[in-house]
Amino acid sequence: MASHNLKYQPSRELLEQTRDRISSLIRRTPVLTSDELNRRSQAQLFFKCENTQITGSFKMRGAANAVFSMTEVDRANGVTAHSSGNFAQAVARAAQLAEVKAHIVMPHNAPEIKKRGVQRYAGDITLCEPTIEAREASCQAIVEKTGAAKLHPSNQWEVILGQATAAMELLDEVPDLDALVVPVGGGGLLAGTALAGHFFGKSGIDIYAGEPARTDDAYRSLRSGKIETNDRVDTAADGLRTTLGDVNFPIIMKYVRDIIRVEEEEIISSLLMCYEELKQVIEPSCAVPLAAILKSPKIFQGKKIGIVLTGGNIDLQRLDGWV
Amino acid sequence: MASHNLKYQPSRELLEQTRDRISSLIRRTPVLTSDELNRRSQAQLFFKCENTQITGSFKMRGAANAVFSMTEVDRANGVTAHSSGNFAQAVARAAQLAEVKAHIVMPHNAPEIKKRGVQRYAGDITLCEPTIEAREASCQAIVEKTGAAKLHPSNQWEVILGQATAAMELLDEVPDLDALVVPVGGGGLLAGTALAGHFFGKSGIDIYAGEPARTDDAYRSLRSGKIETNDRVDTAADGLRTTLGDVNFPIIMKYVRDIIRVEEEEIISSLLMCYEELKQVIEPSCAVPLAAILKSPKIFQGKKIGIVLTGGNIDLQRLDGWV
Repeated sequence: MASHNLKYQPSRELLEQTRDRISSLIRRTPVLTSDELNRRSQAQLFFKCENTQITGSFKMRGAANAVFSMTEVDRANGVTAHSSGNFAQAVARAAQLAEVKAHIVMPHNAPEIKKRGVQRYAGDITLCEPTIEAREASCQAIVEKTGAAKLHPSNQWEVILGQATAAMELLDEVPDLDALVVPVGGGGLLAGTALAGHFFGKSGIDIYAGEPARTDDAYRSLRSGKIETNDRVDTAADGLRTTLGDVNFPIIMKYVRDIIRVEEEEIISSLLMCYEELKQVIEPSCAVPLAAILKSPKIFQGKKIGIVLTGGNIDLQRLDGWV
Repeated sequence: MASHNLKYQPSRELLEQTRDRISSLIRRTPVLTSDELNRRSQAQLFFKCENTQITGSFKMRGAANAVFSMTEVDRANGVTAHSSGNFAQAVARAAQLAEVKAHIVMPHNAPEIKKRGVQRYAGDITLCEPTIEAREASCQAIVEKTGAAKLHPSNQWEVILGQATAAMELLDEVPDLDALVVPVGGGGLLAGTALAGHFFGKSGIDIYAGEPARTDDAYRSLRSGKIETNDRVDTAADGLRTTLGDVNFPIIMKYVRDIIRVEEEEIISSLLMCYEELKQVIEPSCAVPLAAILKSPKIFQGKKIGIVLTGGNIDLQRLDGWV
């Protein structure tokens, strides 16, 4: 692990402090099971329903920890972040709870429900082109103009630690999981989940991620040992178009067993199963772990598996083409 | 209360025995809240997510209690029931757990997802015309042919007691509710919820039901003091087209404060709110209590209210016309 990136030395205590810091700011989400999905996977699946988290995704955990880890002086000029949607809403809500301003940069093609979410929590939206360069530039301009503190959706220690608390809660309820499976986009949830599994899971617990085959940068990064990028981002899993970062990548390299790539039709098929069997409204990114499990019986059959259902912010119109 | 209908004298102990009988057969479902729905209702709403119950609806509670209250001899020839869908699936699953045959009569226009559910649990389906007469006749023919024990979806003591356990669990988690609100169709859930509120709620807890204005038989029955019927059944809330029965009606007359009628567009609007804010897949019948609360601020503002989200068995294609 590249030690120069270790602002914190990960530890059980650090994760527990994080959990305690944010416990009153977030919701303890339910864990659901389905006989039918167990039958189809020939495994025991436990779904941690972060789609029912405040703001509709796990991102509230990392955002709350980041905002409330800052001193009041550090956050006095507000906070800023760029996000396709879920981190945007989470930062807006966390800032509202901290009574500071949130300046949110969103690509103009972000789902409407996510834009409305930011507005609901009184966040100021700046729309930009849907490229990482445009998003960074807009954010930087806000920092220079307002003095707001910039938050990163996945490559910041406080965010990674916050995301870890979802798997911590899941392991608190189901301690003997053989594996944890989450989606990987920017890598914050995966790194956090890996730390939670390492410190709170049973000995030998395996950490996996599912990733859209069309944006398989994390899969390739794990194999090449360096952060890879994507030539295309045309996956339905709009939350997973980003790439890993220098803070989360060393953790992922150290603790993640493998990354499983899934096709678009597998994502949609698993999404519909979550609607029909779990009765949960989820967004496409959220269906990727189930798709990964269903396509990999050799890895998962007979195992007890924890899955983070990451979010439920979807424009329901999108279902039209899929059902 | 018409005492000749009282096969059981309702009591706290009877409800506790029911809870203990079925606890290993059902799922303890989560309770969700939403800041946004609290804001819109100006109340504190607690949603008991029976859409995530085994078979996708609260009906599993009553079916499990009915099947497992019988002696093995009584159920040896199997069980039969007619149902538009949710009770059908529940009886099929309860019979499967008891290792007896389930003969299920369903109207041919029942939602596909509900027919598939019955098949999944190895229930034998007999399709019939969508009238109460045709359903009764088909069921009677099965009883005569097979000797199966007939179960009623709403007008049978064991079923009513089973349905009561949803509100019991909710009151266990949120003891100081001011009101409980459920949908009313056949009256089984409403009667059970009324008993749960009476024996386990705080003193003065109010029991309400929401009902589609197009099938407002229960509303009229509560006012006339006799069981009324419907001239039309064209509500989107397909689970609420039935009428009260002589077992549940006396309980409803005694313990229910009022029934609130809601229009079709209010049902659909509340349904979409449950998808978007609670991230729960629900069927139209399930949205009726929220619609009743939102249209009755004078009754509910400032109150702490428990709602049973009754079920999530919906063909997702139906959403197309509504989003």
